[in-house]
Amino acid sequence: MINEKMFGLGNEASIIRELSEYGNKRKEIVGEDNVYDFSIGNPSIPAPLEVNETLIDLLKNMDSVSLHGYTSAPGDKHVRDMIASNLNERFNCKAKGELIYLTQGASASLSISLRALINEGDEVIVFAPFFPEYRTFVNNAGGKMVEVQPDLSSFYPDFEDFSRKISYKTKAVIINSPNNPTGVIYPHDVINKIASILKSKQIEYGHEIYLCSDEPYRELVYKEIEYPFITNYYDNSLVFYSFSKSISLPGERIGYILVSSKCKDSERVYKAICGAGRSLGFICASSLFQFALPKIVNSLSDLSKYKENRDILSKGLSDLGYEFIQSEGAFYLFVKALEDDAVAFCKKALKYDLILVPSDSFGIKGYVRIAYCVNKKRIIDSLPAFRKLKELYLEERK
Amino acid sequence: MINEKMFGLGNEASIIRELSEYGNKRKEIVGEDNVYDFSIGNPSIPAPLEVNETLIDLLKNMDSVSLHGYTSAPGDKHVRDMIASNLNERFNCKAKGELIYLTQGASASLSISLRALINEGDEVIVFAPFFPEYRTFVNNAGGKMVEVQPDLSSFYPDFEDFSRKISYKTKAVIINSPNNPTGVIYPHDVINKIASILKSKQIEYGHEIYLCSDEPYRELVYKEIEYPFITNYYDNSLVFYSFSKSISLPGERIGYILVSSKCKDSERVYKAICGAGRSLGFICASSLFQFALPKIVNSLSDLSKYKENRDILSKGLSDLGYEFIQSEGAFYLFVKALEDDAVAFCKKALKYDLILVPSDSFGIKGYVRIAYCVNKKRIIDSLPAFRKLKELYLEERK
Repeated sequence: MINEKMFGLGNEASIIRELSEYGNKRKEIVGEDNVYDFSIGNPSIPAPLEVNETLIDLLKNMDSVSLHGYTSAPGDKHVRDMIASNLNERFNCKAKGELIYLTQGASASLSISLRALINEGDEVIVFAPFFPEYRTFVNNAGGKMVEVQPDLSSFYPDFEDFSRKISYKTKAVIINSPNNPTGVIYPHDVINKIASILKSKQIEYGHEIYLCSDEPYRELVYKEIEYPFITNYYDNSLVFYSFSKSISLPGERIGYILVSSKCKDSERVYKAICGAGRSLGFICASSLFQFALPKIVNSLSDLSKYKENRDILSKGLSDLGYEFIQSEGAFYLFVKALEDDAVAFCKKALKYDLILVPSDSFGIKGYVRIAYCVNKKRIIDSLPAFRKLKELYLEERK
Repeated sequence: MINEKMFGLGNEASIIRELSEYGNKRKEIVGEDNVYDFSIGNPSIPAPLEVNETLIDLLKNMDSVSLHGYTSAPGDKHVRDMIASNLNERFNCKAKGELIYLTQGASASLSISLRALINEGDEVIVFAPFFPEYRTFVNNAGGKMVEVQPDLSSFYPDFEDFSRKISYKTKAVIINSPNNPTGVIYPHDVINKIASILKSKQIEYGHEIYLCSDEPYRELVYKEIEYPFITNYYDNSLVFYSFSKSISLPGERIGYILVSSKCKDSERVYKAICGAGRSLGFICASSLFQFALPKIVNSLSDLSKYKENRDILSKGLSDLGYEFIQSEGAFYLFVKALEDDAVAFCKKALKYDLILVPSDSFGIKGYVRIAYCVNKKRIIDSLPAFRKLKELYLEERK
């Protein structure tokens, strides 16, 4: 009698949550240090000091009624203008404050924007491997998700498969770079190729196809690269950002949607976003965190620790003979399972108290995701367990 | 090509916003003190001191990674248990932490819960006059809103109309007491009557009808009354609460959904709520504000100021011969317009820089809503304008 689809979503065992809960129980038995839990992408590096300092300063000095009062639904105008000019300084991208909509993080941005763009039956293309909740948000908006396979040597999209999967019904394409779960960053050439395919398909089908860049990991990059900002490559584009990872505020839910100023009918798209936010019951992003943004928009958590983790983990696994694509950003390493069935592999890993996430829910088989946003000690201590796991498979093959 | 329904919602001129913007422009011309803006329900009383003190204490002393990290989607377990025991102390209502879902305020609670309960085509009954966004949330969940007219002498529901409007398709009923826009509080007898009608209709139709109490104004009460807590009257009930008004935090978006422990299949209902939250892109309520709740759950803004405003306004308008039902709670007074067309009346009021909201969008004609959550001076200064408005109508009738 209630909505069974919603019950199903609420009741569904998220494999990541399940593994994480198993890990927590196991920790109670064998001790926290003896469980190598790599399941959850929860930042382990504290927020930069100036974040809490800014919040305290606002709480002490700003008038309470203004600080904690409603802002306009898309967010405080001054804050939005500041974000736009910050983006323009960094990416020379012609962002406008009146096309920024502050949200409660990247998931909210996805949910709102897809609802704004999609009509029942529209298709949304995602590139495997992808964040599993894309499917939930696309379905919730009445759309159908279409998966494009990767080139397994680079984990860039298979462009032929991409071209083939674009149809008259394609309304939007979601990219996620740096990528969860691979840590891969799409370079200039890849973004260019995606944009050029979409441009010709827009002409072929005679309607807009929106390119949505979900980039909560934009600042978590471990190599020298000029981040290819999507609105500079493709006009009908939207950016979803979150401050969860860059300044370690995942629980506070603060981020934004940017509609490119070059997007066709950008104002109409923006108004549909306002309408979708309204229909979902979003009133405004937290006013305290909104007002903090001007002071912390350039802040960054100490990412050198994630990079150090990445280096230790990838060196260790490489020495043991594991195969993976090097992680260039975010805080995930995507490793080939030692058998075709990643779920079975993860079950075997549990014997050594290694908690890994099988790749199946990311839309691809035969890999595991290792979230290395943990303390360094856990990574170092886990390597003997990875060795035993490898040896088990060598043993079995004899 | 985008979703036109969402564009419509975003583009729609909210009469309240429009009036408020007109008021702001007018203030620039004639000065802030000369515009009697009663359009918006934004609390004007600062948050109690201990709110900011608690936030500062957490920011100074709690580990940053834990403070700002993800909580579980329904909220921190300890916080939910604390809210449950606080409700049990106050209302003896058998609330359980595992049936509380922390949200980003009452609108989010409504949007999530309606989505969890409603299947396409289900009907949701609301009592006029009602908060206009109910329509948006019901429609968004695929439901159809059915309006019940009030008894105009009390602004309690017309129970005959209520009984008549319940059908086989009725899935839920929303009540809102203290009420926006009337300030009326449903006493024990009214709640009892609603519950008893619903109980017999549940038997008649052989399925659950959920009673949803939207109560962000629960603490804003200006008379001695034992608040009739809905779960003590009706088993299949849900409570939507927000800390926006009681402790003046409307911009921070923190509240909760409570599923009654006596609700049939309460766990299934709760899981559907979890699923609906997930589908809408809610990840968790702000962790900082969650962790603050245990210390401020009994706090209250200084409501004596709203009461004083209410007294001055109602005495003043009564002396001038305006008709209204006395406001017992929230911060709204619902006044009979001096002509049948409330929109025309509000336009005439603008001549005297009185900004009132016509009742039409609340589902009833011929009244205006006056939000008296303003500073006292504005109320006192406005009375001559109300006099002139009254005189204008006396003049016209001659």
